[in-house]
Amino acid sequence: MNSLFLRYHPHMQERFDAVTVEECRAFTGAKWHHFGEEALALWVADMDFPIADEIQQAIQKRITHNIGYPQHGGDPELLDAIVDRLSGRFGWQIERKDIMLIPGVVRGLFAGVLALTQPGDGVVTQVPVYPPFLMSIENTGRVVQANPMLQKENTWELDFEQLESLVTPQTRLLMLCNPQNPTGRVFSRAELEKLAEFVLKHDLLVISDELHADLIFDGEHTVFASLSPEMESRTLTLYGPGKTFNLAGLGMGYIISRNPELLARVRKATVGMLPEPNVLSMAGTLAAYTQAQQWEREVVQYLHANRDHLNARLKAELPEVKTAVPEGTYLQLLDFNAYPFAAEAQKVLLAGGVALNEGTAFGKDYKGYVRINFATSRQILDQALDLMVKTVQTKTVQQNA
Amino acid sequence: MNSLFLRYHPHMQERFDAVTVEECRAFTGAKWHHFGEEALALWVADMDFPIADEIQQAIQKRITHNIGYPQHGGDPELLDAIVDRLSGRFGWQIERKDIMLIPGVVRGLFAGVLALTQPGDGVVTQVPVYPPFLMSIENTGRVVQANPMLQKENTWELDFEQLESLVTPQTRLLMLCNPQNPTGRVFSRAELEKLAEFVLKHDLLVISDELHADLIFDGEHTVFASLSPEMESRTLTLYGPGKTFNLAGLGMGYIISRNPELLARVRKATVGMLPEPNVLSMAGTLAAYTQAQQWEREVVQYLHANRDHLNARLKAELPEVKTAVPEGTYLQLLDFNAYPFAAEAQKVLLAGGVALNEGTAFGKDYKGYVRINFATSRQILDQALDLMVKTVQTKTVQQNA
Repeated sequence: MNSLFLRYHPHMQERFDAVTVEECRAFTGAKWHHFGEEALALWVADMDFPIADEIQQAIQKRITHNIGYPQHGGDPELLDAIVDRLSGRFGWQIERKDIMLIPGVVRGLFAGVLALTQPGDGVVTQVPVYPPFLMSIENTGRVVQANPMLQKENTWELDFEQLESLVTPQTRLLMLCNPQNPTGRVFSRAELEKLAEFVLKHDLLVISDELHADLIFDGEHTVFASLSPEMESRTLTLYGPGKTFNLAGLGMGYIISRNPELLARVRKATVGMLPEPNVLSMAGTLAAYTQAQQWEREVVQYLHANRDHLNARLKAELPEVKTAVPEGTYLQLLDFNAYPFAAEAQKVLLAGGVALNEGTAFGKDYKGYVRINFATSRQILDQALDLMVKTVQTKTVQQNA
Repeated sequence: MNSLFLRYHPHMQERFDAVTVEECRAFTGAKWHHFGEEALALWVADMDFPIADEIQQAIQKRITHNIGYPQHGGDPELLDAIVDRLSGRFGWQIERKDIMLIPGVVRGLFAGVLALTQPGDGVVTQVPVYPPFLMSIENTGRVVQANPMLQKENTWELDFEQLESLVTPQTRLLMLCNPQNPTGRVFSRAELEKLAEFVLKHDLLVISDELHADLIFDGEHTVFASLSPEMESRTLTLYGPGKTFNLAGLGMGYIISRNPELLARVRKATVGMLPEPNVLSMAGTLAAYTQAQQWEREVVQYLHANRDHLNARLKAELPEVKTAVPEGTYLQLLDFNAYPFAAEAQKVLLAGGVALNEGTAFGKDYKGYVRINFATSRQILDQALDLMVKTVQTKTVQQNA
């Protein structure tokens, strides 16, 4: 670890712009190391931006204080900040007791599946989807009932007809990802209401992962559980500060439910294995929600501009890549199936100097797709796009030769 | 949170001595709040001492760096520091691959029981014992096979005869706590070798919680798994920095095994629920092991002196309290059964201003016992003893009246 990573100054957009490859290579985490030291890392869902100064300072202060066992259930101030945020942003009214702090949202997926289903039960989920969705179903002996989204010109649509046909007597649970990773879809209220009808018709329970809810460019985020008292009583909502404030390494998330019986089932199913997040994560999250609004506004603005820039360049320079402009998240799925090297797209692009996620991680049918993470500085995004364009040209020339 | 909690200065013993009740009441954690604002808190196993400056500084520096997803398996420097510590302190040679970082040792108890046994299996453990031992067996549908230690004049002995008689065809696992919480026993090599014979004879697996291994006043700590290759191949060892460096709130522990098959069983049984500790915990632990040796030496010295002081006062002023001077840990079990109010001892002492742990939490037969935590300043320890003596006198007068 070195000290290249300076604190941002008041012009955060400039600071975000200034992030260099050298600075990123000095990071100690997974993103810039997993694929070796050569490739530009635009894969795992971390941002390359420095975190908010207010969060740094809050944690620096907290560590000077006693760090023994925290109060059971978590810091009450933090619980209040979560309540306030959900109410203020999304109009969803909850109480402290509805929140279970957990060490990251992925644990919530596994805990939720264990709590709400039995081995052999069917779990419906839209694909392509964040890999831990599939792992949490398969690795616990439940059955994935995949509902592929319809890939349209510049969007992905829910396929309600196929969804209906999937249901068996074993189907117990819908696992929803909204905003959707990796497509970047932000489902409309109308779409969610139709999903809610489906849930009610088949008497299902719901895990709704809304981790990217703060990163919206078009439309607005609707909390699934907030649609109706029926949905509230059937849903575990997953949320946290990891994506919004670039705090994945803190391991902080929440399972929220207005139905205490569902939370009791989670506690029972996880029998002592799911610890509360550590005291520094709690202090950092409280600061994020109460003091880092300016940083948050600026990062969403920066991501929005990056999204538009990325898509303008894709359209102009890689027009055969089929894709949909994401309405939220900083992730986007790119379909290389128009190219003869599609089946190897991730490997070819990696050899060309850009590390992206392999499409089949999001569902077995997504061969030829890759996921790109545009939460980096404009200069790094442009360097990556330059390399991708060059790789595609070279590969096309080779294969035509 | 206020700033009463100053950094310690070079004379750490003086700094430990200077900790006041007012300072502790400003803590935000469980210890000084759970039983209300009035009682002196000598219960849950946190120390009241400020943590090492080197740990504070390492975390303050780490938070200025990117805190995205850490490298899979944990920071290699930290893994090396753990390897070095176990070799240097206890002569146990392990490798990086033998270490699974987990968010606190309690999770390791639950994960280990789930991994090494099936519902209905019998699990042998010495009582009285740290409550999560019993919870990890009972809450997962396994059966506690309790092996009560023999309470002798100033010690607790293993009862090998009763142990042998406990074994059924369903017995699969021995859960050992050494140094023992709450008795403070540090088992001798000879005692552990006799336990190892028992394990081999009945073909058992072992979970050995050695979290207090660094806090030894008499004798020395022997790593159970280090006794023989047979024990290495059968044992999950639990260890971490939480007790030694007063870092419970960081949520950091390790499951260590030289048998990769046992670790694979843990990973399978915990299916995605057991996250790695967060990046700040890793940075803090690395600093603890590589830079905070002076603080550690001084804290053990201070605890040793507190232990002697506590026991001198008990002997002089509460001679009817039956107890054993602990060889390690900062915990001690006090038996009030000589007093008519024994069944209510914890409540009576709490009403008298001192919060201690209730004995029955450590096993159903320990009515009339309480556990005291002497990891506090001498002045607070003395205040608590004054109150305890006064309470006992008052109560005795009342009951004789």
